[in-house]
Amino acid sequence: MAAKTYSVLITGANRGIGLEMVKQMVEATRPIQKIFACCRDPDGPRSEALQALAKKHPNVVTVIRLDVTDLSSIKQSAQKVGSLVGTGGLNLLVNNAGVLAHGTVMTTSPEDMQAAFNTNIMGPMNVTKEFLPLVQTAARASGAPGRMSCSKAAVINISTVMASMASLAASYSHMPAMSYRVSKAGLNMLMLCCSEEFGKDEILFAGLHPGWVKTEMGGSAAHIEAPESVEGLLRVMDSLTDKQNGAFLDYQGKPIPW
Amino acid sequence: MAAKTYSVLITGANRGIGLEMVKQMVEATRPIQKIFACCRDPDGPRSEALQALAKKHPNVVTVIRLDVTDLSSIKQSAQKVGSLVGTGGLNLLVNNAGVLAHGTVMTTSPEDMQAAFNTNIMGPMNVTKEFLPLVQTAARASGAPGRMSCSKAAVINISTVMASMASLAASYSHMPAMSYRVSKAGLNMLMLCCSEEFGKDEILFAGLHPGWVKTEMGGSAAHIEAPESVEGLLRVMDSLTDKQNGAFLDYQGKPIPW
Repeated sequence: MAAKTYSVLITGANRGIGLEMVKQMVEATRPIQKIFACCRDPDGPRSEALQALAKKHPNVVTVIRLDVTDLSSIKQSAQKVGSLVGTGGLNLLVNNAGVLAHGTVMTTSPEDMQAAFNTNIMGPMNVTKEFLPLVQTAARASGAPGRMSCSKAAVINISTVMASMASLAASYSHMPAMSYRVSKAGLNMLMLCCSEEFGKDEILFAGLHPGWVKTEMGGSAAHIEAPESVEGLLRVMDSLTDKQNGAFLDYQGKPIPW
Repeated sequence: MAAKTYSVLITGANRGIGLEMVKQMVEATRPIQKIFACCRDPDGPRSEALQALAKKHPNVVTVIRLDVTDLSSIKQSAQKVGSLVGTGGLNLLVNNAGVLAHGTVMTTSPEDMQAAFNTNIMGPMNVTKEFLPLVQTAARASGAPGRMSCSKAAVINISTVMASMASLAASYSHMPAMSYRVSKAGLNMLMLCCSEEFGKDEILFAGLHPGWVKTEMGGSAAHIEAPESVEGLLRVMDSLTDKQNGAFLDYQGKPIPW
């Protein structure tokens, strides 16, 4: 990744993979100037770890109130971030906030389906659209026309191998999570549409699978710890070029079949 | 297909592909005993062609009021159809009702997204769940244990090649229809989850692409007429076995990549 400093925004940054991403970005020697760590309730008890991190790195980490299911909240946060990044724009947007319910087709309620749609599809869609002018600004300000990278202008969606239709049969019986699968398959399609539509702006889009991670969402039976997942995700993000625009990759950089 | 008579239910049967399907099923020498032709407003002006068809074939075609976006309407119609099919159950459910909006990521409204979610994902999900007991009854009553076919017990979702992530790049610029693509990709995932979950009941699930058809939805620039599409779809449906459970095929039987 270029040594030029850059700015990042992460949704769902108060716990799990989002929080670990803020931690690793601020602690490593990455050339990140500004991290906008977004969460629904920055003053609540579930954001204490993030607030402590922000207090330790007040010049880098800014905690922003952002509920991805609330369009007015998204618009407000985009306005605030816009005033903070100025003419440099926002280089990297990470759509990380998501919800998971465990039901099968028969046991999933309409409410679980709607929640998955709101947070896992409409959230990334509205966040991407509202922050897009800032990412477009970053692309133009980059001084690197014709290239794509996460340090220039990119939108990364945290997806999941459970959105892979090609590999569903191997995992459905022990982990149905139907609403999660359906919404994340939709998110992958949204990401692909974005990669086509905003290629002209030289903004890179990709969907990344973080592995099965021991977080509140992943549960204790998961395979890897959050630090290992995020180390991999950041390494993959660093490596992305225009060749990976529209790609669906795991945290080790391996392509996942649709 | 076995010569045994069987029953079919089709949603969105008052026009386009749905209406043509009713026509061909009733006019051909297929061993179909009962067709439940469902639409939102059976007494409205947009259902006149279907009503005329039903009047011509009163012993075969029953028009049923069914709004796939209204759970109570689905439950009522399931109860009515249940009383009509009796111990034979419902052999084939065709989730055909759908909506299409033409916007890009930037021009699609939240309302268009919600409408696509309601009709193209929640509709087939709720219809499948509410009619499932009738299809399970048909599977048990078939006298053909261990087999799968559309004349025994099946749910066919009308999908689209536009839900194919692998082939998005070829068509997005001239036909974005983002909300349609996202919802139909989600529908494909739902269909796959169903194929895993209800395989034990010997119910076949598949998603079929009807081609680009000259209907109100497809527009006048489309490639084929509804009769050609439906002839193909019915031929493909006749040919399906357990080998195609969970398949995504076009109206000529060709597999479509996810």
